[in-house]
Amino acid sequence: MTVSRTICLGFLSVIAVGTILLLMPFSNSSGNWNDPLVALFTATSAVCVTGLGVVDTGTYFSFWGQFVMVVLVQIGGLGYMTATTFLLLLIGARFSLRDKIAIQQSLDRSSIYGSDQVLRSIIATTIIFELTGVFLLLPVFIPQHGFYQGLWIAIFHSINSWNNAGFSLFKDNLIGYQSSVLLNFTVTGLIIFGGIGYQVIMELYLWLRDRLTKKPERLLFSLNFKVATTTTLILLILGTISFFLIELRNPETFGQMNLVNKIMAAWFQSVTTRTAGFNTVDFGKMTTAGLFITIALMFIGASPGGTGGGMKTTTLRVLTSCTKAILQGQEQVLLYKRQVPISLILKAVGVLIGSVGTVVLATMMIALVEPNLNFIQILFEVVSAFATVGLSTGITATISPVAKLVLILTMYVGRVGVLLLMSAILGDPKPSAIRYPEENLIVG
Amino acid sequence: MTVSRTICLGFLSVIAVGTILLLMPFSNSSGNWNDPLVALFTATSAVCVTGLGVVDTGTYFSFWGQFVMVVLVQIGGLGYMTATTFLLLLIGARFSLRDKIAIQQSLDRSSIYGSDQVLRSIIATTIIFELTGVFLLLPVFIPQHGFYQGLWIAIFHSINSWNNAGFSLFKDNLIGYQSSVLLNFTVTGLIIFGGIGYQVIMELYLWLRDRLTKKPERLLFSLNFKVATTTTLILLILGTISFFLIELRNPETFGQMNLVNKIMAAWFQSVTTRTAGFNTVDFGKMTTAGLFITIALMFIGASPGGTGGGMKTTTLRVLTSCTKAILQGQEQVLLYKRQVPISLILKAVGVLIGSVGTVVLATMMIALVEPNLNFIQILFEVVSAFATVGLSTGITATISPVAKLVLILTMYVGRVGVLLLMSAILGDPKPSAIRYPEENLIVG
Ligand SMILES: [K+]
Ligand SMILES: [K+]
Repeated sequence: MTVSRTICLGFLSVIAVGTILLLMPFSNSSGNWNDPLVALFTATSAVCVTGLGVVDTGTYFSFWGQFVMVVLVQIGGLGYMTATTFLLLLIGARFSLRDKIAIQQSLDRSSIYGSDQVLRSIIATTIIFELTGVFLLLPVFIPQHGFYQGLWIAIFHSINSWNNAGFSLFKDNLIGYQSSVLLNFTVTGLIIFGGIGYQVIMELYLWLRDRLTKKPERLLFSLNFKVATTTTLILLILGTISFFLIELRNPETFGQMNLVNKIMAAWFQSVTTRTAGFNTVDFGKMTTAGLFITIALMFIGASPGGTGGGMKTTTLRVLTSCTKAILQGQEQVLLYKRQVPISLILKAVGVLIGSVGTVVLATMMIALVEPNLNFIQILFEVVSAFATVGLSTGITATISPVAKLVLILTMYVGRVGVLLLMSAILGDPKPSAIRYPEENLIVG
Repeated sequence: MTVSRTICLGFLSVIAVGTILLLMPFSNSSGNWNDPLVALFTATSAVCVTGLGVVDTGTYFSFWGQFVMVVLVQIGGLGYMTATTFLLLLIGARFSLRDKIAIQQSLDRSSIYGSDQVLRSIIATTIIFELTGVFLLLPVFIPQHGFYQGLWIAIFHSINSWNNAGFSLFKDNLIGYQSSVLLNFTVTGLIIFGGIGYQVIMELYLWLRDRLTKKPERLLFSLNFKVATTTTLILLILGTISFFLIELRNPETFGQMNLVNKIMAAWFQSVTTRTAGFNTVDFGKMTTAGLFITIALMFIGASPGGTGGGMKTTTLRVLTSCTKAILQGQEQVLLYKRQVPISLILKAVGVLIGSVGTVVLATMMIALVEPNLNFIQILFEVVSAFATVGLSTGITATISPVAKLVLILTMYVGRVGVLLLMSAILGDPKPSAIRYPEENLIVG
């Protein structure tokens, strides 16, 4: 079996098991068998760490139902993080023969040679971050909900933050905590580190360790590190400024807040759109411009090797570097004085075309079965599902079963990736050895 | 002065002259000086062959005003066709040294060696098509409007069809003629040939001549011919089927028509969205799904070397071929057994990123100043302006001056092209000779 088929079927089987468990009477707070569509939707949303919901998680599901969800989120997030990290490591290994680049170097230094150690290290990182999250969230939830309930809420939200899943036990998501500084920074911190990828965290850790132990040797950061951190930083700042300026005077979102809360809410929304899906304001009340910038940020998404989704920051950077290269009349595409290989450019184009194609198709299908919905609500919902974000303007629960099935498919395709899914269906490629002559065209 | 600067400034000067002429009292049917914003908008729309209007052309402008518009359309369309055809010929010349490909071959055979002959041939082709159009439209307009008025209407609509401009002298555009078979096929014929490009028409003509004279030599079609014709055909058929199925039961568009008219209207709308901008149904009454497919078709647009706009059929094909290549595990991108050069792939990416960027920016700006408009109406209007289509859901006249200025800029950027405009601003590129090592990343 090919790698792509293993990954696609792996996600499918976890979704299937999750659906069965969520169907059971013990998962439901009413003690009855669950609606199959609700179970399938919730299981897919959890395994794909999307966080879109057709029911209110806190009241509809029993403790055991919520427990199943959190386990599915953990398996989905960890599985995705591990799979993409191994892909990054494979790339690193291939290139370490030619250049002494950072990724391999950092792996050598932390004595991670085998895949077992990488897996163990990823699990350890996950546990450290999630436990820190629980610890920081306890003072937020315990005073209001008592020790046991507060502990459970803290665990649930910490795991959902690190895995960028975005399920919440509160009916209004985290709107009730929009002014809690501790919650805002704990949740956004977990989201950012979970979304930026394991490799970036490791390089950051090694760099910090070297600084503290005053090692003379200088750590070379990998290209992935440079691209992921700078792009994430730029998008976070741009997102915060945009949300702040656009929603400043909207009385139903930021309008009534004081300045500090406005900035904090803008920051929270900027972090969460890529691709956690928590919210501290009501996206159903947002202006058209605010929704549009959200759609753009959701589509770009997080960095590879993390738990987030979307087109990925690296894809965006490769594509913008192509644009820069052609404007400078160059045929080599550069990123931080490294040449981007042609196969990577083709892959970035494939990811973009596949992503746009999926979003257009899904939007089209929902627009056909739901002619009375606002277009931006449909587009918002589809991009949110595709980029495994989970934000909604509030239509998820009320759309027709066909539209829900389209969203389920979109979440799955968005998670495993269009290219991976296609190559799983098509089977392993057999590269042709025939060379054809070049011929030019005019584009644009 | 660089080529890109000449083209950008050329369009700007024609727009400036056009604005001044349309400001004059003789252009206005009321005999007063015109509103500057209306004159600027109309001149830009005419020179960029967009066809968006903020006033009713037939009643607001005098005969001389309409005459100025038709001359601007003719200069704009011919100028664009000539500029892009020369770019295609330059490419052909470069490649004829290596391969005996069709374009050079066809140029040899039609004994067009110098640029004077190409220009003369383009003008001759334009006149032949436009005169045929006038001749075919006379029986449609003369019975209703008398000889002189009917002749003027026929000339106006023929020139606007061939140049893909889409201005109409009727308040409801061509809705009144939705059941006229002659008008439907004359207008769509002119649009298709005007939009597919001069080089494709020439190759088709030579091929037909060879068939008729039974020449033993076989004409090799250029890659541009193959890509432009097949993509145009596929998009036309897909568009017709989509419009037919989506609007079938919409009582305000196709619902009340008989089957023949339904098919004819679906065909007409499929042709006109890429990128003529005439309409025989009211796009303000279309379903969300119908508007969305229109937006997609408008964005793709026409073929290079013609009068149409948009991202271009060739750009789409290069990008989808990249996707196909990566799925097949290949590093060479093929189109009809020809390898697509890396510079072309980079350019296609640049065109896509630049186009999406412009549309997103313009949509964002209009959404900010017009918070009460429907999102799909804004997106529709912006894509229509960018791809020089000229279709509208009816908001062009009523939006604020700032939004109109944004549309004016969008039309201009869409016509000269983002990459060309950028390189006009940045100046000629100075390619760097330094080679950098490769490093891989994960995208998507
Ligand atoms: K999520
Ligand atoms: K047009």
